[in-house]
Amino acid sequence: MKTLVIGATGVIGRAVSAALEEAGHEVVRASRRGGVRVDIADPDSVAALLASLPGLGAVVCCAASGNLTRLTEGTDAEYLTGLEGKLLGQVRLVRQAIGHLGTGGSITLTGGVFEEPTPGGSFGALVNAGLEAFAAAAAVDLPDGPRVNVVSPGWVSETLEAMGRDGAAGTPARDVARAYLAAVTGTYTGRVLRPTRA
Amino acid sequence: MKTLVIGATGVIGRAVSAALEEAGHEVVRASRRGGVRVDIADPDSVAALLASLPGLGAVVCCAASGNLTRLTEGTDAEYLTGLEGKLLGQVRLVRQAIGHLGTGGSITLTGGVFEEPTPGGSFGALVNAGLEAFAAAAAVDLPDGPRVNVVSPGWVSETLEAMGRDGAAGTPARDVARAYLAAVTGTYTGRVLRPTRA
Ligand SMILES: NC(=O)c1ccc[n+]([C@@H]2O[C@H](COP(=O)([O-])OP(=O)(O)OC[C@H]3O[C@@H](n4cnc5c(N)ncnc54)[C@H](OP(=O)(O)O)[C@@H]3O)[C@@H](O)[C@H]2O)c1
Ligand SMILES: NC(=O)c1ccc[n+]([C@@H]2O[C@H](COP(=O)([O-])OP(=O)(O)OC[C@H]3O[C@@H](n4cnc5c(N)ncnc54)[C@H](OP(=O)(O)O)[C@@H]3O)[C@@H](O)[C@H]2O)c1
Repeated sequence: MKTLVIGATGVIGRAVSAALEEAGHEVVRASRRGGVRVDIADPDSVAALLASLPGLGAVVCCAASGNLTRLTEGTDAEYLTGLEGKLLGQVRLVRQAIGHLGTGGSITLTGGVFEEPTPGGSFGALVNAGLEAFAAAAAVDLPDGPRVNVVSPGWVSETLEAMGRDGAAGTPARDVARAYLAAVTGTYTGRVLRPTRA
Repeated sequence: MKTLVIGATGVIGRAVSAALEEAGHEVVRASRRGGVRVDIADPDSVAALLASLPGLGAVVCCAASGNLTRLTEGTDAEYLTGLEGKLLGQVRLVRQAIGHLGTGGSITLTGGVFEEPTPGGSFGALVNAGLEAFAAAAAVDLPDGPRVNVVSPGWVSETLEAMGRDGAAGTPARDVARAYLAAVTGTYTGRVLRPTRA
């Protein structure tokens, strides 16, 4: 199956792309700075990419970025980081991808979980919970597919380690990737998948 | 206590304003077409209104609008109705109101619940779940207040009746208003209140 991975150069995206390839997928790796270029905050760039990929079977998005800004700090634009690149970008991606995927197709998005109360995490919490509810409700509009699911990881070990923290407190990227593989190859739709350590 | 009700001319807002007045609040009734005018999708109009209300004790927002657009239909703008007027408008309102409220102050937002799978409800589901998660996480950033809560009603009886449906399947507006009163006068913060029939 030809599978588009957006955010393929990231910590999660690299592991997801590798796992899909091991499972026999032809993986198209995309992100803002390429290989293949796309910016999910820019619907035209998504449209152009999808048009260039006939016979696409699945879309996986593990792109995006957010940051922590307290409710009492920053400009609205700083506070709302992630609105275009994570929330609306992924919602629009689903709307755009629907018409490009054949029978058995799937779209897998990325949310996230704050495992503890996190100062500055209120907009991120909105984005993640919004995406989870969106995927569940999206499936109602798509009885004939494609399937839509969200993978919501907690901390990834490699990310914790890059921050100088203990990777054992998180989930290794290869285990996170298994959740994406389950979403793409399984029969789930409208589901939130929470990766766990193998 | 001086309490601003945004959306005060609506089905819910009228009942909330009346309940607050019965409880002794001085209610300032606002909406886009006034009495007092404000558009929560326009941050400047919110800033002007808040600046004109010294000594404000509480803000209640039961404004907003959404509509049902299926994921496979409409333009992105049609699909995303409610983004500015319900989701971002209420988030920005919280950021703006924080500095205007004294000790014991509160901000009460409005979400909603789809009680059954609803075609065209995917963006509304995103908005409602996002607001609920936002309020919970917002409280973490506001240990010294104001309190932030969300009231998430199901169908309101009067709304069902206006649609020619059986009001008994919903919650009467005066019972919905009790949940807002509890949010304003109680000690809750970071909570989702689900109105029920008395
Ligand atoms: N790592 C964690 O611990 C963790 C935990 C929970 C949730 N998550 C979520 O998982 C997702 C990926 O995280 P990650 O740690 O793998 O991130 P990462 O290492 O920073 O990688 C992000 C990837 O997305 C691409 N990207 C960013 N913005 C994009 C855009 N607008 N359009 C297209 N591509 C874009 C980046 O490449 P370019 O810069 O070239 O575009 C890169 O390939 C994020 O949504 C994050 O919130 C991560
Ligand atoms: N009624 C229900 O069954 C029900 C169920 C669940 C959730 N809800 C939610 O509860 C909220 C209120 O519902 P409702 O039925 O009371 O609505 P409604 O009767 O249509 O009233 C909406 C009120 O909000 C005002 N308004 C709308 N957009 C505004 C904006 N951008 N800025 C300021 N004021 C605005 C309107 O006045 P102007 O037009 O003059 O601005 C009016 O006062 C909505 O968020 C709705 O989704 C309602």
